[in-house]
Amino acid sequence: MSSLPPAIVLVRPQLGENIGKAARAMLNFGLTDLRLVTPRDGWPNPSAGPAASGADIVLERARVFDSVAQAVADCPSVYATTVRKRGLVVPVVSPEEAAQEIHANHGASAILFGAERSGLETDEVAIAGKIVTVPVNPDFRSLNLAQAVMLLAYEWSKHEALAVPTLGDEAEPRAPQAHLEGMIAQLFDALEAADYFHPPDRTPATRNTLRTILTKASWSTREVQAMRGVIRALAEGRPKG
Amino acid sequence: MSSLPPAIVLVRPQLGENIGKAARAMLNFGLTDLRLVTPRDGWPNPSAGPAASGADIVLERARVFDSVAQAVADCPSVYATTVRKRGLVVPVVSPEEAAQEIHANHGASAILFGAERSGLETDEVAIAGKIVTVPVNPDFRSLNLAQAVMLLAYEWSKHEALAVPTLGDEAEPRAPQAHLEGMIAQLFDALEAADYFHPPDRTPATRNTLRTILTKASWSTREVQAMRGVIRALAEGRPKG
Repeated sequence: MSSLPPAIVLVRPQLGENIGKAARAMLNFGLTDLRLVTPRDGWPNPSAGPAASGADIVLERARVFDSVAQAVADCPSVYATTVRKRGLVVPVVSPEEAAQEIHANHGASAILFGAERSGLETDEVAIAGKIVTVPVNPDFRSLNLAQAVMLLAYEWSKHEALAVPTLGDEAEPRAPQAHLEGMIAQLFDALEAADYFHPPDRTPATRNTLRTILTKASWSTREVQAMRGVIRALAEGRPKG
Repeated sequence: MSSLPPAIVLVRPQLGENIGKAARAMLNFGLTDLRLVTPRDGWPNPSAGPAASGADIVLERARVFDSVAQAVADCPSVYATTVRKRGLVVPVVSPEEAAQEIHANHGASAILFGAERSGLETDEVAIAGKIVTVPVNPDFRSLNLAQAVMLLAYEWSKHEALAVPTLGDEAEPRAPQAHLEGMIAQLFDALEAADYFHPPDRTPATRNTLRTILTKASWSTREVQAMRGVIRALAEGRPKG
């Protein structure tokens, strides 16, 4: 399996006009897989079409999901476009670096973009293994949604002609996000049973930290299964002799 | 004399709104030298300000010229953003290549952008020594003026070291091998106690597999400690038989 064009995931987008502009920016650089997580005004949105300036095919194929986790379930690699999040240690890459990685990744990567004003929540960023930050003028950061989408699509398109499967060829493909989520859920359940999470007000941060640690490894499906065996063994143990 | 930020030259721009958006795109990536050649609706234009979203300083400093030749009179290097012109033999470069050259050029370079619909005239392109073409999807070319300005400004800014905390910068260093070995030993002890390793003749292979999985992640010392806490909690916390 080789690299596929990335999915663009708009999380809680507000204005249909911005969805349309994002679709246009995508198609300009050859991307067509648009996914919407709980768009504020529902979907389809009559304002999207005119703003897409002809990129109707992207809007027609757009799929709607109830959560970020569902939207990226089939994607082995997930990137969150945001600035660094407090309390979350995730590698930060430039659009250029992300584009290079996406071409080297197996399967489809996903790139998350937050709502126009509020951006992505910390736990949404935690689902992604990496943060992509567009390096803008620190004294004037006013990149809008469609512009951010365009820059990522543009960087991706640059490597399209050159896309050469090298590295990954012999390596095992990275496990899809759903496999990782299964493992993480199992671990959280086991840790819950073992009274690991306390004090309660620290639990969300602790979960995010663990999530980051576990997604950092780019484990294959086989490796995820091995880790699930480890967790099960530790949690259940065996009757002592 | 070293390289200066390039001037953005809008030739016969029609809508004030597009001038404002171009100014915003410029300032996002640190450019401030905007030059207008015979803007259709005169200058200043009341529609420009609102579209600039706060990039007022660029609009205030904008200068108006009667011709392209006058607008670029002080610029040793001039680039025309357009597709190749018939009957004109001028080198064509990508935005990336143009950005690299602009940084290598002495003095200020200028980048010309044509009117929204009509683009640049052949004799205006001839003033430029080079053509810059943004490689868009051949089946869907709908890049607007501000987007084209943004891509060029973005490419230029990449070589500027604007404010880019990317990878290594603050990323935590990888834990020393001894920390990893401590964690692995702890896990193996816990798995031994849970009767995980069987059949015995498979144990060395299983240990190697787990070792590979756990060293793959490049965990930091902090992350190794978190994982040790997880192992301890799972090993000790399970309900006793």
